[in-house]
Amino acid sequence: MPSFGPATRKLKGKLGRRVTTDHDAVFAASFDGSKLSFLPEAVIKPKTKAEIAEVLALANKYKVPVTARGAGSSLTGSGSPIAGGWVLDLSGWNKITVDAEAGFAHVQAGAVIENIHKAVEALGWFYPPDPASKKFCTIGGNIACNAGGMHGGKYGVTRDFVLALKGFLPTGEYVEWGTATKKFSSGFNLRDLWIGAEGMLGVVTEATLKLIPLPAARWTLLTSFADEAAAFRAIRVLFGQRVQPAICEFLDRYAVQCAEAKTGKTVFAGQAGRPVILLELAGTASEVAETKETVLAWAKAHTTAYREARDRAEAEELWDVRRKCSGAMFALGDSKLNEDIVVPMRSYEKFAAFLDKLRKSSRLPIPTFGHLADGNLHVNIMYHRENHAEYLRAEKAVGQLMAGVVKLGGAISGEHGIGLAKTPFMPLQHSPAQIKAMRAVKDALDPNGILNPGKMFTLFKVWEHPRLKIALPWDHK
Amino acid sequence: MPSFGPATRKLKGKLGRRVTTDHDAVFAASFDGSKLSFLPEAVIKPKTKAEIAEVLALANKYKVPVTARGAGSSLTGSGSPIAGGWVLDLSGWNKITVDAEAGFAHVQAGAVIENIHKAVEALGWFYPPDPASKKFCTIGGNIACNAGGMHGGKYGVTRDFVLALKGFLPTGEYVEWGTATKKFSSGFNLRDLWIGAEGMLGVVTEATLKLIPLPAARWTLLTSFADEAAAFRAIRVLFGQRVQPAICEFLDRYAVQCAEAKTGKTVFAGQAGRPVILLELAGTASEVAETKETVLAWAKAHTTAYREARDRAEAEELWDVRRKCSGAMFALGDSKLNEDIVVPMRSYEKFAAFLDKLRKSSRLPIPTFGHLADGNLHVNIMYHRENHAEYLRAEKAVGQLMAGVVKLGGAISGEHGIGLAKTPFMPLQHSPAQIKAMRAVKDALDPNGILNPGKMFTLFKVWEHPRLKIALPWDHK
Repeated sequence: MPSFGPATRKLKGKLGRRVTTDHDAVFAASFDGSKLSFLPEAVIKPKTKAEIAEVLALANKYKVPVTARGAGSSLTGSGSPIAGGWVLDLSGWNKITVDAEAGFAHVQAGAVIENIHKAVEALGWFYPPDPASKKFCTIGGNIACNAGGMHGGKYGVTRDFVLALKGFLPTGEYVEWGTATKKFSSGFNLRDLWIGAEGMLGVVTEATLKLIPLPAARWTLLTSFADEAAAFRAIRVLFGQRVQPAICEFLDRYAVQCAEAKTGKTVFAGQAGRPVILLELAGTASEVAETKETVLAWAKAHTTAYREARDRAEAEELWDVRRKCSGAMFALGDSKLNEDIVVPMRSYEKFAAFLDKLRKSSRLPIPTFGHLADGNLHVNIMYHRENHAEYLRAEKAVGQLMAGVVKLGGAISGEHGIGLAKTPFMPLQHSPAQIKAMRAVKDALDPNGILNPGKMFTLFKVWEHPRLKIALPWDHK
Repeated sequence: MPSFGPATRKLKGKLGRRVTTDHDAVFAASFDGSKLSFLPEAVIKPKTKAEIAEVLALANKYKVPVTARGAGSSLTGSGSPIAGGWVLDLSGWNKITVDAEAGFAHVQAGAVIENIHKAVEALGWFYPPDPASKKFCTIGGNIACNAGGMHGGKYGVTRDFVLALKGFLPTGEYVEWGTATKKFSSGFNLRDLWIGAEGMLGVVTEATLKLIPLPAARWTLLTSFADEAAAFRAIRVLFGQRVQPAICEFLDRYAVQCAEAKTGKTVFAGQAGRPVILLELAGTASEVAETKETVLAWAKAHTTAYREARDRAEAEELWDVRRKCSGAMFALGDSKLNEDIVVPMRSYEKFAAFLDKLRKSSRLPIPTFGHLADGNLHVNIMYHRENHAEYLRAEKAVGQLMAGVVKLGGAISGEHGIGLAKTPFMPLQHSPAQIKAMRAVKDALDPNGILNPGKMFTLFKVWEHPRLKIALPWDHK
């Protein structure tokens, strides 16, 4: 790792105890949820905008890499400071204020998603994006990877709710993109260019989020199917009836079996080991009551069994299955490659057949679950860390998965982003002309390449890097 | 105007009769809805992607300005080829196909918005953006200026419905941004960077639009108020109750008076000359029935009068007022500067007071109407073309309006974009650092500056340029 000693000394001279080079602090900032660790030289916890400007101006002058960080729960390595340098820790920037009349939340980059949910729901508003790590992850990180979650199909993803951003160019210059209004059509849209850019184009310090009225009613239905293809065929029929569930979670038979093995209970009495779809409707009371009838008629015709939650407690019980399945998969291997690919709806059945082939050729368990209303499926390739042959087969299977998904017209990532782990697959998704254009934008906005270098465009051979053996708060248990 | 004769001859050699230099054709392509005319050297109607690639590769080599064009209904001059060169007419690229299961429309750039509406609504889907020129304007132009319309407050604008774009870099290289899926988080988001970029960063040839289920029911209510401030105060109360009307159109007293003078009828019996708000709820039948009760209770408490449309015919009658008001304003002057500013909801009453002052200081009629659910107001500064003093006062008033709007935290454009006409106000909305970053992006993606040059960043003194005296199909009668 290159040393930036003189710059770091200058920084300490200016920012004093906001800057730490203690081993424990720099180690804690050396990795994200990918557990790929690269030690930075210093961690900075700025208190003011002027301090952030100072950090970036110095970094730009001395060409010091800067990686902005919230909770560090990224799964791709986008938060691991691979080139060392400085980590800009914004987790302390966590203010949330709600404009209850306009339906906007003004949040600082370090605000935790669950805290945003609580603040706005208390006032009758709803912020739909809900990544699995919502208890920990921050809006800054959600903006960096354009996070999604279970509500994406009906309501959209992070990008669909960001009205305005405030932050800094890598030069330390302060900028604002968009205004706190629902319409804005002035100048190039650098707001959305920053969203999903994984902290490589600018540092977000504040965002204005658009809210929607909190649905007054919710209704949950568990359904089971003979096999995955039947589940996929059935759900396409429901969508064809113009029904938009707020949530539409799919668990294939392997995911269901994991949950059953772990809990010792059958997910759905009489339907053991069968794939399930968990549906939730949301809206006004009358709207939910009306749509429910359509869904029940569909369930009668297209499922092997269905069970309605009679109240929120029963609904919670059903949701518990979905939450348990991810952690339960570790019975199949102590490690997983958790991919977040997207498959177009018309290719769901083809994808089920593709996954079956991949299971056979890789000789690995690949339990799969995900968001059927938007095609964003979490494909979990399980292996044993100490078994190198297994690991190599897992890595090979990921490559085949990505190629297969792109061939079907899908996306290599729906909500996690690229970071380090998915850099090998960028050329599958994007043509050389597209990548050249993206790199030109990077060079234009960050000519010294200081913001989160080494991500997205530089091939990272993840198979050559050991992962830390530690437990993180958001790891599925 | 510089001549690009040798390049144009090469182009004709390659594309033959796709290229025309006839006076009538180049004149027709020399202006947009702004009626600012600048003759191009040739107009190209390409039939294939290979031809578009060829046009751009040649243009890039010989540094010929290229302005892509659909209907040419832009109001800002963004479609007027100010630097001459070539106009790339994509109005013939108008195919629309609907994926009725996934709820997507695949459209070519020249598809007319109303035709998209008809195609998707026939299949039970809804594409909400609906600019006033929807009978003529194309999706390519809507993408270029991030067009909005009456549904923006509840449903969003063009940007919120574009999943994927296909098109060309100024080098003639073909690119695709995003996939036809609802989630996508891979690489920099050049899709949204292109949206609203007014054709300065790339040429869009195709788009995939996200649709939502067609609302089964609609309900319309006309309300009137003692004055503008009362109307604004009242609507904030309704929004505070978490009611989101699909449409919420405001007409100030001057707009109402215009409509009354023109039709010889009172807009609202017993409420002559009073500002009105026209509300429309949309959703499932039960949802509309439920929300209607809340709205009626609000109307009883906060309006001077209200009238419910008993059926679609009566609703159409009410909407007729809204549609007539824009054309009726020409009784106040033969010309107007139609601005599309955005005001934050909390500043509505302040803005009403500001407009009153502006009317006094400019000594001009300024009837105003617009979309209260998103703060996007059309401020119409009326003047007589041949009265130079009036024209100068109108131009001055526009500058004051823009400065006032930015001071209130709003936007200088909500749905028209910048083009030529609003270039003087860019520095009000965007700091030097922001503009520098935007220009850096332009230089990175279009190093020869061939795509729609002279727009957005170059000061255009609109007051020094005469406008054509012609009637266009989308002019308000």
